[in-house]
Amino acid sequence: MEFAFDSTTQDLIERMNAFMDEVVYPAEPTAHEQIERNYREDRWEPPAIIEDLKAEAKRRGLWNFFLPGEKGAGLTNLQYAPLAEITGRSIQLAPPAVNCAAPDTGNMEVLHMFGTDEQKQQWLEPLLAGEIRSAFAMTEPDVASSDATNIETSIVRDGDEYVINGRKWWITGAMNPNCKVFIVMGKTDPTAERHRQQSMILVPRDTPGLEVVRGMHVLGFHDRDHGGHAELRFTDVRVPASNLIGGEGEGFAIAQARLGPGRIHHCMRSIGLAERAVEMMVKRASERVAFGKPISDQGVVRDWIAESRVKIEQLRLLTLKTAWLMDTVGNKGAHTEIQAIKIATPQTVEWILDKAIQVHGAGGLSQDFPLAEMFAGIRTLRFADGPDEVHKNSLARAEIRKQLAR
Amino acid sequence: MEFAFDSTTQDLIERMNAFMDEVVYPAEPTAHEQIERNYREDRWEPPAIIEDLKAEAKRRGLWNFFLPGEKGAGLTNLQYAPLAEITGRSIQLAPPAVNCAAPDTGNMEVLHMFGTDEQKQQWLEPLLAGEIRSAFAMTEPDVASSDATNIETSIVRDGDEYVINGRKWWITGAMNPNCKVFIVMGKTDPTAERHRQQSMILVPRDTPGLEVVRGMHVLGFHDRDHGGHAELRFTDVRVPASNLIGGEGEGFAIAQARLGPGRIHHCMRSIGLAERAVEMMVKRASERVAFGKPISDQGVVRDWIAESRVKIEQLRLLTLKTAWLMDTVGNKGAHTEIQAIKIATPQTVEWILDKAIQVHGAGGLSQDFPLAEMFAGIRTLRFADGPDEVHKNSLARAEIRKQLAR
Amino acid sequence: MEFAFDSTTQDLIERMNAFMDEVVYPAEPTAHEQIERNYREDRWEPPAIIEDLKAEAKRRGLWNFFLPGEKGAGLTNLQYAPLAEITGRSIQLAPPAVNCAAPDTGNMEVLHMFGTDEQKQQWLEPLLAGEIRSAFAMTEPDVASSDATNIETSIVRDGDEYVINGRKWWITGAMNPNCKVFIVMGKTDPTAERHRQQSMILVPRDTPGLEVVRGMHVLGFHDRDHGGHAELRFTDVRVPASNLIGGEGEGFAIAQARLGPGRIHHCMRSIGLAERAVEMMVKRASERVAFGKPISDQGVVRDWIAESRVKIEQLRLLTLKTAWLMDTVGNKGAHTEIQAIKIATPQTVEWILDKAIQVHGAGGLSQDFPLAEMFAGIRTLRFADGPDEVHKNSLARAEIRKQLAR
Amino acid sequence: MEFAFDSTTQDLIERMNAFMDEVVYPAEPTAHEQIERNYREDRWEPPAIIEDLKAEAKRRGLWNFFLPGEKGAGLTNLQYAPLAEITGRSIQLAPPAVNCAAPDTGNMEVLHMFGTDEQKQQWLEPLLAGEIRSAFAMTEPDVASSDATNIETSIVRDGDEYVINGRKWWITGAMNPNCKVFIVMGKTDPTAERHRQQSMILVPRDTPGLEVVRGMHVLGFHDRDHGGHAELRFTDVRVPASNLIGGEGEGFAIAQARLGPGRIHHCMRSIGLAERAVEMMVKRASERVAFGKPISDQGVVRDWIAESRVKIEQLRLLTLKTAWLMDTVGNKGAHTEIQAIKIATPQTVEWILDKAIQVHGAGGLSQDFPLAEMFAGIRTLRFADGPDEVHKNSLARAEIRKQLAR
Repeated sequence: MEFAFDSTTQDLIERMNAFMDEVVYPAEPTAHEQIERNYREDRWEPPAIIEDLKAEAKRRGLWNFFLPGEKGAGLTNLQYAPLAEITGRSIQLAPPAVNCAAPDTGNMEVLHMFGTDEQKQQWLEPLLAGEIRSAFAMTEPDVASSDATNIETSIVRDGDEYVINGRKWWITGAMNPNCKVFIVMGKTDPTAERHRQQSMILVPRDTPGLEVVRGMHVLGFHDRDHGGHAELRFTDVRVPASNLIGGEGEGFAIAQARLGPGRIHHCMRSIGLAERAVEMMVKRASERVAFGKPISDQGVVRDWIAESRVKIEQLRLLTLKTAWLMDTVGNKGAHTEIQAIKIATPQTVEWILDKAIQVHGAGGLSQDFPLAEMFAGIRTLRFADGPDEVHKNSLARAEIRKQLAR
Repeated sequence: MEFAFDSTTQDLIERMNAFMDEVVYPAEPTAHEQIERNYREDRWEPPAIIEDLKAEAKRRGLWNFFLPGEKGAGLTNLQYAPLAEITGRSIQLAPPAVNCAAPDTGNMEVLHMFGTDEQKQQWLEPLLAGEIRSAFAMTEPDVASSDATNIETSIVRDGDEYVINGRKWWITGAMNPNCKVFIVMGKTDPTAERHRQQSMILVPRDTPGLEVVRGMHVLGFHDRDHGGHAELRFTDVRVPASNLIGGEGEGFAIAQARLGPGRIHHCMRSIGLAERAVEMMVKRASERVAFGKPISDQGVVRDWIAESRVKIEQLRLLTLKTAWLMDTVGNKGAHTEIQAIKIATPQTVEWILDKAIQVHGAGGLSQDFPLAEMFAGIRTLRFADGPDEVHKNSLARAEIRKQLAR
Repeated sequence: MEFAFDSTTQDLIERMNAFMDEVVYPAEPTAHEQIERNYREDRWEPPAIIEDLKAEAKRRGLWNFFLPGEKGAGLTNLQYAPLAEITGRSIQLAPPAVNCAAPDTGNMEVLHMFGTDEQKQQWLEPLLAGEIRSAFAMTEPDVASSDATNIETSIVRDGDEYVINGRKWWITGAMNPNCKVFIVMGKTDPTAERHRQQSMILVPRDTPGLEVVRGMHVLGFHDRDHGGHAELRFTDVRVPASNLIGGEGEGFAIAQARLGPGRIHHCMRSIGLAERAVEMMVKRASERVAFGKPISDQGVVRDWIAESRVKIEQLRLLTLKTAWLMDTVGNKGAHTEIQAIKIATPQTVEWILDKAIQVHGAGGLSQDFPLAEMFAGIRTLRFADGPDEVHKNSLARAEIRKQLAR
Repeated sequence: MEFAFDSTTQDLIERMNAFMDEVVYPAEPTAHEQIERNYREDRWEPPAIIEDLKAEAKRRGLWNFFLPGEKGAGLTNLQYAPLAEITGRSIQLAPPAVNCAAPDTGNMEVLHMFGTDEQKQQWLEPLLAGEIRSAFAMTEPDVASSDATNIETSIVRDGDEYVINGRKWWITGAMNPNCKVFIVMGKTDPTAERHRQQSMILVPRDTPGLEVVRGMHVLGFHDRDHGGHAELRFTDVRVPASNLIGGEGEGFAIAQARLGPGRIHHCMRSIGLAERAVEMMVKRASERVAFGKPISDQGVVRDWIAESRVKIEQLRLLTLKTAWLMDTVGNKGAHTEIQAIKIATPQTVEWILDKAIQVHGAGGLSQDFPLAEMFAGIRTLRFADGPDEVHKNSLARAEIRKQLAR
């Protein structure tokens, strides 16, 4: 057992920190203005400055960390973890700057693992190059989508094509016009065995019958900077049969394969976000005076700061161990730990954000600090890929099984 | 001791419930559309339908409940409490419909109690008639405003006028063009005894030098439906000396007098809002099926529903008792209880809203349900009129003093 | 609605407070010594001084408050509530001093409502006179007794007698040799409809076949001062058929009738106990100096004191309202509220005790302060008459039903 | 970074688990009986069977793990951590069985690091051999001892002797007649600089003037099995000057050196204890049926089991990392992490025990399961070596300093 990072990781951490200090943090004010302007002008685009950041990141060789193997940066999950955490410190800018932003990372992994050469050529290459963005269309408005077998979108074979009908919502990134392709989950055979009914298929943005209805809001935020969360309607949408990813009935298995890394990446970034929040909380508490002394001298605020530190340290270690398990025994072997961090992260980070906001007074809820938007983002994680309650129930079942098997 | 409402109250409760069922709830979808449209068109107005509701409320004699005496409805705080609660069930529409919306209620009370005849004629009358709206400008961006002695806005006598300079923010309602007058808190004598430095003065909206800078957001909400929360800048703003409310140095005392009723009204409405949230939580949990059974059959959801009921019942009773104390021993005598409900209400209602949102899945955070906006509103109450921590500290000091005096 | 107590109650409150100040609190040190001595000498008796307190209470006319009608003090539940609260301030001494201690109160009510004249003569009279004590034997070790239909003790008719077989535990008071009679719940007809299988029967202490096996401990405490919590074994225990309370199959209904008042009395006393804990917490925090200032100046301790006050005020009002409902619409009409206080009381008071203990340092857990024993007693309330979880589930079901019926 | 244990540790884990399965768990019923008997007979000794366990442990080479270097087992803190955890699973038997029980471990470390050869010969050797036990006398009843500068016991030089006067309490193990020596903390120079006033001195049990007054209770437990927690009175107690450990004024520094390992050992064992509690919770929940299904099917119980697992995993990793830091950068370098686990462990494990008890019904609080005694033990950790609040305050101060230094 050894808690120091290896030298490759240590080196990348230093380079990432330099990139943050020299490039990303200084870009935040400009980005903020651009985001505000896009918002006022009703546009759903990332701030233009992101392209500069991407160019600089590429130049520095800080790119595609998330993808193992030669196509990516060749890192293990454990090596990627602290880098993802660092990107979480500037959650709107840093992940896309190094081409490690959701949902593209998950989509690239799906294409990397399950795509045909043609699919890779057409979609994976420009995604890896950071030229286009993508979305993952799974959740539906009419059913409890945490239970994947509830999904109602149909994907029906018709000659050389598949015909797609259905509704989706909370499709992150899909409002962004540069989001060029959707990976859509639907049922090819509703009569098959429960986990063999689903398939995944690629649908280009401009396909007739695909309607981007509206952007969903999150606690008042539109999340326009990363393409929002769209409601989509598929009406007799036709794509070539070759757009299917893997075979018919493999949708559930592919989704499962996608979820593990997706979840841990969210957790890693959220920890960086929490660190940023603690930093802001300490700074504000030290600067602000009430009733004759800095707020940081108040016992209750001290209590919050201490608890934040104690919580983060524990959460980070579990996330790192989970990454190590994924590397050593595979995503399946790390199933319980992936669930555990999926449960622990949002509740921990939401708690910290709540206190950071409270230290900022009403300003903490406003557009003058990023805390409110961070709160909204983390709050959604208590639903994303299934609500906490579903994961807790499943984790408990596994624990009971394991204990009784002894 | 007796827990039934008197017959006057019981009658008004029934008439208010009828008004809600027949007029307010049916107006919600239209109001929602109008709010959305105003928002898209960058306007800071209440939805037009509110004027219809006001006319109908007046016709039914459901008007100005909040104001004791003949100018108002002649109700005690205890009689008003359950009516305020009912208005909280449709928080955007019902309070203004019956002319019992913050911050006008507090402002009308201030004018009623401390205004000159001329001030009453000019401002109180149209406010009581529901023709104009008003704002209360106290909080400042540069200081911890929970400590009123920190306030920096200056009000300087110059001949027959006062000259006002300073910055304010979180001035609720001030973005609404129909908000015609601001009650501004500032210092007339920074060298006086701590609680005699402040004064209050009336500043009409169109006074030169008064700039409405921008609307503050709450989480991502603008709260345009009730005039938002403005940042204001006062640069050599001149008003007649007769605009002063009360005498110089009476600002702090007037603010204190205003706070008691203001706080309890917030609490009453918040309880109604919590009841609406429980209603929505139960409805959704009963309709939504996951893993083969309605969500309402899940033990954890049951736990939330039970805890919600247990919490609300306790909170309501303390709020009612506080109202009764205000009626019987005055606002000062009810000081501890007012603080207690100010502390208890946001934490209780926020907890309930969080669970109601969780039961709704991601939709609960979106524009498709009112829960997210309700959450944002309640979250601000943990700061409004001073953060919880200040009130807890003060309440504890009083408790210690009381115990040691035995 | 009116939050002041009536003059009868107000007068009794004053007399009870005088009794506490003049008689009960001064007796605490002696009682404490006697309890310690009984404990060392392995005796399960109340401290001898209780008899003095009882005599004095009787002399002052402070007796049998709990029982409505002429046999008791003629008080309503609402009138009794604040008196029960006061007794909770000295939980080991005051309730028995005024003959208002569990489980006798519940047993007396059962006999009062359902007993035959003969049963009343033999058992109710000496209980009302405070000459003997009694126990209520319902919970069983082998089944989840929160589900009364699980009960396995058998009560079989044999000629003029009933024969009882079974095991019970947690039978409070039963280790006290002066506990002369047990009300035993068992099944007379396991084949009857679910809630008609049970009956209740009187079993005198000295009946052959009834074995008092041992005292159960509660977090290390024996609770010898009030007769502990016994495990009992019934082996062919024979009692006259006339010992049956009510008819066969009425046991469940009688238990339900008994539970309502029993629960609210526990809650009332627990509130008094919580008040005593706050008093001790404030006193200790004010006297103890750490790092240069009294602990009561620390923000976190202030927070605890404030939250304690806020919680108690709410809890008391709900308990009072529940008492009022029992008086006005009956125990059935107050069912939800009785459940609500049964849920809220232990969690609230346990929280307060935990903080009071923490303020006392390790001493707070020791025999030098009553807090540890108070904690143990309150902790059991999360199980008594069914665990919180069962009550929450039931209350939620009722809430759901009510909401959907609208 | 690497989360697998090294082969030495892995081997010892297996041997310890075998020892637990083959020797310790089977001894629990007998030990329980012996403890009960000692208790009834008012004796303060460990159960006799412990000597058998010690002999067997020695035979298996499972001994003195806690002590680095050749005198001990030569393990690092990180290697010892999982072994200490395993001993926590049978908290009354396993730690003394392998001679790794508090407070002897800390005392042996003190003697090992700071003792003279003579002191080592006389006291360290028999302690290492498991022949005698020892106690550490620091906490005092009259002052807030979390602030070591408050200590009032005096150690005054008088010729070749030191004379000790003062009172101590909560001196763990001191009631055990086989506890042959006390390390006493007192002030040799109350006028010196704050952290140079204290010294430590060895006081043999039979020294005249040393009175073992009584055992302190914890909740209702005496903890007789490990020698209880004594109140001591020192009246002109004289010991040779050579009994001083280190020099005059070094007491505070030695105490600090002792605290780091002492705290982490407590945490490690507590994690094992928590695992045992989860095991019991799952077992009971699976066996017990209420309302037609096993309790383990109830959502709320599932939630508890899941949260328990998620909390333990995080806590263990932070404890292991802390051990690793102590090994690599020293106790000082690990200061923040030691505080963090000191804060996190009791709150986490207490939460788990509370739920495990709740699943067991009232039995969970009784002598029929070890959970109540485990709860009492863990509850004291929120005070031991200073209350949580002191540690949180200190940790927050360090965090603020660190952040502001950036």
